[in-house]
Amino acid sequence: MAAAGLRPEAGSPQWAPAEREPAGAAAGPGDGEDAPVRPLCKPRGICSRAYFLVLMVLVHLYLGNVLALLLFVHYSDGDDGGHPAPPRRAPGPQPAPTPAPLARLEGIKVGHEQKVQLVADRDHFIRTLSLKPLLFEVPGFLRDEECRLIIHLAQMKGLQRSQILPTEEYEEALGTMQVSQLDLFRLLDQNRDGRLQLREVLAQTRLGNGRWMTPENIQEMYSAIKADPDGDGVLSLQEFSDMDLRDFHKYMRRHKAESSELVRNSHHTWLYQGEGAHQVMRAIRQRVLRLTRLPAEIVELSEPMQVVRYGEGGHYHAHVDSGPVYPETICSHTKLVANESVPFETSCRYMTVLFYLNNVTGGGETVFPVADNRTYDEMSLIQDDVDLRDTRRHCDKGNLRVRPQQGTAVFWYNYLPDGQGWVGDVDDYSLHGGCLVTRGTKWIANNWINVDPSRARQALFQQEMARLAREGGADSQPEWALDRAYRDARVEL
Amino acid sequence: MAAAGLRPEAGSPQWAPAEREPAGAAAGPGDGEDAPVRPLCKPRGICSRAYFLVLMVLVHLYLGNVLALLLFVHYSDGDDGGHPAPPRRAPGPQPAPTPAPLARLEGIKVGHEQKVQLVADRDHFIRTLSLKPLLFEVPGFLRDEECRLIIHLAQMKGLQRSQILPTEEYEEALGTMQVSQLDLFRLLDQNRDGRLQLREVLAQTRLGNGRWMTPENIQEMYSAIKADPDGDGVLSLQEFSDMDLRDFHKYMRRHKAESSELVRNSHHTWLYQGEGAHQVMRAIRQRVLRLTRLPAEIVELSEPMQVVRYGEGGHYHAHVDSGPVYPETICSHTKLVANESVPFETSCRYMTVLFYLNNVTGGGETVFPVADNRTYDEMSLIQDDVDLRDTRRHCDKGNLRVRPQQGTAVFWYNYLPDGQGWVGDVDDYSLHGGCLVTRGTKWIANNWINVDPSRARQALFQQEMARLAREGGADSQPEWALDRAYRDARVEL
Repeated sequence: MAAAGLRPEAGSPQWAPAEREPAGAAAGPGDGEDAPVRPLCKPRGICSRAYFLVLMVLVHLYLGNVLALLLFVHYSDGDDGGHPAPPRRAPGPQPAPTPAPLARLEGIKVGHEQKVQLVADRDHFIRTLSLKPLLFEVPGFLRDEECRLIIHLAQMKGLQRSQILPTEEYEEALGTMQVSQLDLFRLLDQNRDGRLQLREVLAQTRLGNGRWMTPENIQEMYSAIKADPDGDGVLSLQEFSDMDLRDFHKYMRRHKAESSELVRNSHHTWLYQGEGAHQVMRAIRQRVLRLTRLPAEIVELSEPMQVVRYGEGGHYHAHVDSGPVYPETICSHTKLVANESVPFETSCRYMTVLFYLNNVTGGGETVFPVADNRTYDEMSLIQDDVDLRDTRRHCDKGNLRVRPQQGTAVFWYNYLPDGQGWVGDVDDYSLHGGCLVTRGTKWIANNWINVDPSRARQALFQQEMARLAREGGADSQPEWALDRAYRDARVEL
Repeated sequence: MAAAGLRPEAGSPQWAPAEREPAGAAAGPGDGEDAPVRPLCKPRGICSRAYFLVLMVLVHLYLGNVLALLLFVHYSDGDDGGHPAPPRRAPGPQPAPTPAPLARLEGIKVGHEQKVQLVADRDHFIRTLSLKPLLFEVPGFLRDEECRLIIHLAQMKGLQRSQILPTEEYEEALGTMQVSQLDLFRLLDQNRDGRLQLREVLAQTRLGNGRWMTPENIQEMYSAIKADPDGDGVLSLQEFSDMDLRDFHKYMRRHKAESSELVRNSHHTWLYQGEGAHQVMRAIRQRVLRLTRLPAEIVELSEPMQVVRYGEGGHYHAHVDSGPVYPETICSHTKLVANESVPFETSCRYMTVLFYLNNVTGGGETVFPVADNRTYDEMSLIQDDVDLRDTRRHCDKGNLRVRPQQGTAVFWYNYLPDGQGWVGDVDDYSLHGGCLVTRGTKWIANNWINVDPSRARQALFQQEMARLAREGGADSQPEWALDRAYRDARVEL
């Protein structure tokens, strides 16, 4: 038969974490912000473990967290056909009603248009841009004066760098390293040919620790630490074993990255949209509610608006906006009610609604490198010479590019449906990035719609927020709760 | 922006023929059977008219039907941005309730599995094979003994050749030809480069009049009628003008095609599944009902089961199972209530459920040449040297192949949704064929689910069938009506 088999999903209408496979990559600490450093690899079981271990070895946070490692290894075994994961701990004692199925717009086919009434005085047309991801465009979603106001509000509030390189000592990490260099090699060697190709190193984006890796700077690093004597860009097991990982870390620490070398080169701020916010901000939230056809509770309890400025030379390499879903993952927005201490936290952004606030003189397109590709093949995406995720160099080779046009909204689903009316797996095809701004400035804004893949936990969260609103008045407690829920959304990468 | 614009669709929940564009190719006469000879071409407006005119010139039926031609030209003008089509004539005076939205299974992603209970004693798993078309596979849908029984019933009833070449005199057609050879050239020259490439001729499958055209036999024909003196396989305008079309027809008539040279090389018969049919046939219909989640009226009023035998050397070149939808198209199953005389009739097969009745020793896969392709590009599908629709030669190059396995059902949607819960445009990606049986015999069966793209006419049809059933008893009148509705389904290509 033609397609690869998957284990059957549970027939139950409830989210069934025990049935879920740990697919894709682990969400690392500090991933409350977008997930630009998510590795992209196959085979998935191997990859997940590889990535997790690399993360354990090379990143400072949670290093030596043996409990988490054991937990992960346990789930990985389940993935390999072993024991299923233990049933999830109930998030709390209170019962909450099961939320209604989530609406999902129909794409029909690329180019399909549907007329909608989002505001009183005009019609809008929602045009399908791709089916994988399910991606739409709505010209004129914002009025020009609304765009200008958002920029103005953001400037008044002040924008900060979207990414700053971590300054911690890399060497710290090495003291607690628990994986042998041979194991590490095996984990990186995805195609199991006994050699590390450049693309296998590129795929582990987090190795760069915030710095975007290119084939050239990996080779530069090899050369500096004399890791690849024959200079072919491929590390044999011998070459890898001869390498002293401390040299790698020293090199990375010594090398001061410029902003153009980061994963993300922009400034941003957050604008509140809840009760009492500027009427335009409120109106936009209502318009997004009508656009997405999701329940008001979900949209109202979602993140504030993120406003982003890309200067000339700005970019954001391709990434997915939300992390994968493991049984042990919790969402930033619902962790308030999760009452659990778990190693993985992600932002659970079911949808992204992106607004173009100005017309950009040159560049700055939004690229979806693998949109509507027949298959999602990481090793076609990341090759030894061309990395399609690189939005400074290879936007022209992506499958789909959207040119910024003031007032246009594009929106897409970062997760597939689960077949039961709720959130399923992360959609690999939602990979997207901001192309290099070659001339002028680019202003955009993001509205993310947060939904917990655990239907029960989302229900509990909504119930709790409603209770807080009743007890604390119309706008004080929910705001506090929201701030707390999004504390990590403001932590820089 | 990235994707080509389309005119907006009507927001009304009713089928709105005036909003519809004549997309793709016209369904020709005798197309009540599958539509293997549907041309595949772009740009669509040009193509439709081209195809229609070629059809007018070369096929015997309806030739000189000036009314139809005028009607078509009228709609083509609408397609080119001119006047919209006139509102459709109401199908009848009786009001019928609007049918509920049609269920459509969720594909989620390739490889996704969902568990379903179709029979009392076991579970089945529906696995997604592709999203374009929305295509699934259900192993073990039929028990082995059910497969054997169906084959037995078909053999008892007797099978007939699925395709016989028409024997009418081609010359007849020429007498009433109304298009100049220059116009014909322009219509065939899709890429408008002033030359006819082989693929442009191949794309007009109907030119073969039931015989499958290959690059080789077109060149053979050119050579026989001295149409291409320089032998490069490309006809210049001069070469085309110098050609006497009567020579072409004489050549086609003289050349006796073997069964391997036909579009379809198989034998088939029809097995009744309505009230009073064999209990296994009834049970399968009920199982299909549960599988498709469509209303019982729709499934019960659909075509009988078609059982097909492909001997060694059998094949069916790639085709779509149903025709495109024009405002002037009527469906074979509802024409009883349409009370209209219109030039286009098609079978309106919303879904195809295909059963593999045996394991085939060699070959006989079902191929979907463009499944999940990023784009549907006819000229990539049909090239001068490789025609991916050719299932005798190029099955190995198709995107998706399903190997026959006794008892497995595959099913797919031949139409896209319209966004209002009803039937939209034909899905170009549903193109499929039966690969050459290299060894042994292949037995399959088809259940087509017929739905009229006019929601109102489907409602009227169901109402009328219900009335006939009430008046004529449980099984006499509907059977008669069904027989009448499917009279054309038994007419050979």
